[in-house]
Amino acid sequence: MIRMNENYLKLQSSYLFSDIAKRVARFQEANPGREILRLGIGDVTRALPKACVEAFHKAVDEMAQDTTFRGYGPEQGYPFLREAIAAHDFQERGAHISADEVFVSDGAKCDTGNFQEVFSSDIAIAIPDPVYPVYVDSNVMSGRTGFFSNGRYEGPVYLESTRENHYVPHIPKERVDLIYLCFPNNPTGATATRDQLSKWVAYARENRALILYDAAYAAFIRDESLPRSIYEIEGARDVAIEFRSFSKTAGFTGTRCAYTIIPRSCIAYDESGNARDLHSLWNRRHTTKFNGVSYPVQRAAEAVYSAEGKEQVKGLTDYYLRNASLILEKMRDLGYACAGGENSPYIWVNTRTDSWDFFDLLLEKAAVVCTPGSGFGACGRGYIRLSAFNQFEQVEIAMERIAEAVRK
Amino acid sequence: MIRMNENYLKLQSSYLFSDIAKRVARFQEANPGREILRLGIGDVTRALPKACVEAFHKAVDEMAQDTTFRGYGPEQGYPFLREAIAAHDFQERGAHISADEVFVSDGAKCDTGNFQEVFSSDIAIAIPDPVYPVYVDSNVMSGRTGFFSNGRYEGPVYLESTRENHYVPHIPKERVDLIYLCFPNNPTGATATRDQLSKWVAYARENRALILYDAAYAAFIRDESLPRSIYEIEGARDVAIEFRSFSKTAGFTGTRCAYTIIPRSCIAYDESGNARDLHSLWNRRHTTKFNGVSYPVQRAAEAVYSAEGKEQVKGLTDYYLRNASLILEKMRDLGYACAGGENSPYIWVNTRTDSWDFFDLLLEKAAVVCTPGSGFGACGRGYIRLSAFNQFEQVEIAMERIAEAVRK
Repeated sequence: MIRMNENYLKLQSSYLFSDIAKRVARFQEANPGREILRLGIGDVTRALPKACVEAFHKAVDEMAQDTTFRGYGPEQGYPFLREAIAAHDFQERGAHISADEVFVSDGAKCDTGNFQEVFSSDIAIAIPDPVYPVYVDSNVMSGRTGFFSNGRYEGPVYLESTRENHYVPHIPKERVDLIYLCFPNNPTGATATRDQLSKWVAYARENRALILYDAAYAAFIRDESLPRSIYEIEGARDVAIEFRSFSKTAGFTGTRCAYTIIPRSCIAYDESGNARDLHSLWNRRHTTKFNGVSYPVQRAAEAVYSAEGKEQVKGLTDYYLRNASLILEKMRDLGYACAGGENSPYIWVNTRTDSWDFFDLLLEKAAVVCTPGSGFGACGRGYIRLSAFNQFEQVEIAMERIAEAVRK
Repeated sequence: MIRMNENYLKLQSSYLFSDIAKRVARFQEANPGREILRLGIGDVTRALPKACVEAFHKAVDEMAQDTTFRGYGPEQGYPFLREAIAAHDFQERGAHISADEVFVSDGAKCDTGNFQEVFSSDIAIAIPDPVYPVYVDSNVMSGRTGFFSNGRYEGPVYLESTRENHYVPHIPKERVDLIYLCFPNNPTGATATRDQLSKWVAYARENRALILYDAAYAAFIRDESLPRSIYEIEGARDVAIEFRSFSKTAGFTGTRCAYTIIPRSCIAYDESGNARDLHSLWNRRHTTKFNGVSYPVQRAAEAVYSAEGKEQVKGLTDYYLRNASLILEKMRDLGYACAGGENSPYIWVNTRTDSWDFFDLLLEKAAVVCTPGSGFGACGRGYIRLSAFNQFEQVEIAMERIAEAVRK
């Protein structure tokens, strides 16, 4: 008898986005003429940078001729892309990462979801709250948690991110082996200082723990004192993996390209306490279950690092940061305490009421869609996330409508 | 202490392709002027079909304008592609598969590797020998096998594919829950008749087992009496998942697009024996750990099903089949018993000697690279695999050189 993975029975159905969709559909039906403005989802809306489009076309042309056609590429990514990533995203900022420590993939969601596979099922994991659901769900699927009760799974240590700690969690009292961190954070928009990250790195070094650092929004950091990569922190090379993506940087959410950094010095231990290098472990997983990213997509991603590409990507992220800044300013003017909105495309708004009540208020009075914070975890109750990914003119109208709605 | 997944310690390092590369490099160094002809690897060499290239460019242009830009698409693939697949690859051939049973992905390697995740770790698995290594390795990684000894892992039931059974394995005596099958087969090139597949389907139905059917080479079937899809067999909809790919069909090995069929009626059981539908289980996995295939790539794949696309893809596969036919004829002329080479791009040659000895003979005397069969499993000892993926003129020269080499 073919038996299922019973851990899937523990998973909570994520009703968040389908609940949102249902409420929005009901509202639209009741108000057929009303234009709905969406500040909910974290998806980009602007065209690919010109440099990427040109490189994309050129590579498609190569695929159209036998003489320049490319079949299977290296599973880890083409050297031209790995080298550009190492040079521009790390070495230029003083972080010692080499091209062969870069694993190109089709998405940070895949990598953050799959990476836990190379670890034992009985390690202690620490996961932020509120959080991007993939970290939790992928660990539930592989049996690292108990059942769900009172809003949380049994097992993981939840790293609470609250107004008190400025949404940067403290080191937990319990001993943990694997720590998920994400800065600039999704959903809170919070950033971590060098000092704060240094404490986590020190903890990991002292406790032979490992940090999985999700830096998918690094390109939004403008404050030069903030680290973009965890490898800007001394000692991190031995205890941290970093996930990056071209999705929010260069608008690749529909084009698909990301990468993961595994320094050669990162280790995990076997039962006898022997050190095994993580680079080889992940390489084995990656080459067994993945066949590389589309060649034209890799060429488009490479163009992000050309002089024009860099300028265009800065233009894109600047555009969204201008939206973020407007949202932050307007929400603060209305008297709401907010996090994020600077060095981040997300604004985390303390609504002083129930997340869903505030969601309904914005939808019904302003025809604006946000994301209820409670969907990201227990610590998200009472908050909403506003996303800066939209056209500026739409954001302007949305903020006017919100102002009118909440003043009523 | 961060501990590794101990199952990775059981994995045998796959020295096959690196061993081949080393021997080829050594030979090239000793014979710098000699042109080496490669009939080893299963990678296509010819340009993408024109219809795909045009659709690819058009979609990249859409990504270049805000008004037509696409961000995140559905994780399961765009309806335009899912509908084309269901209509042309299944419904046209009388197999009842609907668009919402198609899950688009970036590779059959990923899907065949990841699919085992949704099953319990203590099911009994049956894996062909010789075999594409991903089926075995992904099960080793998730703890479904013991250690490796005497050329095999403890645990799985190996389905021996030999000259005696024409490389189509018999139903095993042991009871099994999950059965991997692949036709047209990699590496043997063997195909399965309707009758042979019907027996497996009947077995699965009687034993509440499930078949994972890898049909990545289905497009090479020309014999109309042979099933291309397992869903052409009555009753298969309840007990079989099918994996397909655009890699060998339309030359997408470097472009990356594939799909998996999960009929709504396929089930797995929980501990209490309740039926749970596999479609929902995989959907949960797919949406949690995957973010969809690149939009321009999906448009390129869709073009495979246009009138021109179909003709061009037939032209491509015909081209490789002509190579296969030449290789088969020449090897038989030389007195070797062969499988495959018809309805398949692979020719499985009984060398009547050690696989590696024959590899060395072809390399040293003919400067031709093949793949030693022993790299695919114990039953591959004494065989080599020749691949038809090359330019016809190269194959002609290779066959002349092989004839001369083995006659010496």
